[in-house]
Amino acid sequence: MKAHVQLIINIVMHNNTILLGHGSGGTLSHELLESIFFKYFKNSVLEKQTDSAVLHVSPSHLSFTTDSYVVNPIFFNGGNIGKLAVSGTVNDLAVSGAKPLYISVSFIIEEGLPVQELETVVQSMAEEAEKAGVLIVTGDTKVVERGKCDKLYINTTGIGQLEERFTNISYGTRVSKGDRIIINGYIGDHGIAIMNERESLHFSSDIASDAEPLNHLISDIIEHYPIHFMRDATRGGVATVLVELASSLGFGIELDEQVLPVRESVKGLCEILGFDPLYVANEGKVIMVVPEAEAQHILNRMRTHEYGKDAAVIGEITSDHPGKVLLHTEIGGKRIVDMLAGEQLPRIC
Amino acid sequence: MKAHVQLIINIVMHNNTILLGHGSGGTLSHELLESIFFKYFKNSVLEKQTDSAVLHVSPSHLSFTTDSYVVNPIFFNGGNIGKLAVSGTVNDLAVSGAKPLYISVSFIIEEGLPVQELETVVQSMAEEAEKAGVLIVTGDTKVVERGKCDKLYINTTGIGQLEERFTNISYGTRVSKGDRIIINGYIGDHGIAIMNERESLHFSSDIASDAEPLNHLISDIIEHYPIHFMRDATRGGVATVLVELASSLGFGIELDEQVLPVRESVKGLCEILGFDPLYVANEGKVIMVVPEAEAQHILNRMRTHEYGKDAAVIGEITSDHPGKVLLHTEIGGKRIVDMLAGEQLPRIC
Repeated sequence: MKAHVQLIINIVMHNNTILLGHGSGGTLSHELLESIFFKYFKNSVLEKQTDSAVLHVSPSHLSFTTDSYVVNPIFFNGGNIGKLAVSGTVNDLAVSGAKPLYISVSFIIEEGLPVQELETVVQSMAEEAEKAGVLIVTGDTKVVERGKCDKLYINTTGIGQLEERFTNISYGTRVSKGDRIIINGYIGDHGIAIMNERESLHFSSDIASDAEPLNHLISDIIEHYPIHFMRDATRGGVATVLVELASSLGFGIELDEQVLPVRESVKGLCEILGFDPLYVANEGKVIMVVPEAEAQHILNRMRTHEYGKDAAVIGEITSDHPGKVLLHTEIGGKRIVDMLAGEQLPRIC
Repeated sequence: MKAHVQLIINIVMHNNTILLGHGSGGTLSHELLESIFFKYFKNSVLEKQTDSAVLHVSPSHLSFTTDSYVVNPIFFNGGNIGKLAVSGTVNDLAVSGAKPLYISVSFIIEEGLPVQELETVVQSMAEEAEKAGVLIVTGDTKVVERGKCDKLYINTTGIGQLEERFTNISYGTRVSKGDRIIINGYIGDHGIAIMNERESLHFSSDIASDAEPLNHLISDIIEHYPIHFMRDATRGGVATVLVELASSLGFGIELDEQVLPVRESVKGLCEILGFDPLYVANEGKVIMVVPEAEAQHILNRMRTHEYGKDAAVIGEITSDHPGKVLLHTEIGGKRIVDMLAGEQLPRIC
């Protein structure tokens, strides 16, 4: 077995790009599994090498989420497509109130991708999974011809365990007038980092993706405070989450532009590119709607976490203008924040 | 709400191809969700429209599996990529011994795909899910630029409930000498149907993909008979499953070519194309290793099922030539069946 694995590694190293045969289910597929995937994703469930992972979950509710990642480019300041995929799925589970437990990974690879690039991505995925405390327990690989994919697409699907008391957080049924809206840090970093990389703008080197798993921060907060609603502000940004919330609950939302945490560099690049940071994707930001009386305590607690140190209260729930989000602008005006109509930043995640 | 949905359908119908904006998370994404995905996948879990589905599972083991489908072409005799994706994931769960319960679906769509084609695929997925008795509970859509995908790729990830008594079926730990190998019908149909379509060969109109959910057949058999091992024979075909089994358990396997169920039309096309039906992908075939004494009973029972009426005993487990699969050929010879080295039929699933 040992010699077999060694042989396999050698073969993959000789062919240092991905071939169609790596997706065949035959010898080359096995080699890729052994030399790259099992190497980094090693755990007792995955090692069984059956098509389905067998898991044991205590009696409870489960949270289940899927996302395919098609970000372009696959490497960017602050991360890569693999880091994004794992932290994105972990965060989707965490904002549902669940403790993320298991993740599946599925790769669609363009023939010719350097094995080294795949390995870097897989290594990042293993690191993020470790950081979040989740196990990657099953997977799949397909290879398509050159020009039928853009280097690498990744699907991650996650299962989390959800306690009864947290089942309503993601629906926002307890949101009420006067509740405060908190975000755990700077907005727009991920989207602008991708644009900076993609367009080779290189305007500022301090702009990095915020892709990180937020499950530890979130579980700490929901364990100690009553949270009325939470969601991660990914595609469509903060604006989309809040417009959806206002429209589904029939409350109004007021946002204060002056206190929105946006880095100067991100703000500058947004102005040049014609973007509004409110709509730019984040990959490590959670929006929480919390009771007014608890807002300051929650903010203080959030700021003790690595991914919450720049947390801020950015607005509140109101009974005025139900279904609408109103922004109080820095220059003293007011404007309605609408749903994004078309595509602002394609392939941002 | 009703008027809103109506408006949405109109917009999608006006733009009868998929635009990048359909993957933006904004208005166009919502329109696509309402007019296509929710229309067919309607159920109480999915309707919550949160990023993670909340599920309730009784205390038990879970089976968890993922596959990305990149089949080319996306429509073929006997099905399409959507039917394939749902039945493939259902079958992966079923052969693990689990009762398939929930499925996530994630689409990567090439800009310009006719909405009508997407709708046909989604409709098939809903039909297959209904047939299998599984719920599609969460999903994701990404759109990439023309030339960055080949029409449509689909990931399906499934969760099944696995009773303790069935947890070992997929590992084959109870396989022993003399056990019989059963398959539920004709082999090679799926792979050859795809090739026939892709290469516009049109040699025979009776060749159709066998993609179907096998969970009802499988649960009926495992409920009534002791099954020592089972797996679906997909990419790499029957040969790959058996070579892997022999090599992992250290038994030998003998196959009898004369009794292998292969349609004359499939056999003919395999000869022309230079394929061996043993390696051609199936999407509705399960291989079971069963005690010799039960083999005939199991065969009889299998034949009462729609997807088992052409079931056959094709070989047996032996203590000779451990780790090797030996084929007794029709002309009276013997040959070793090896693992497929490279890619025989790319993008078959």
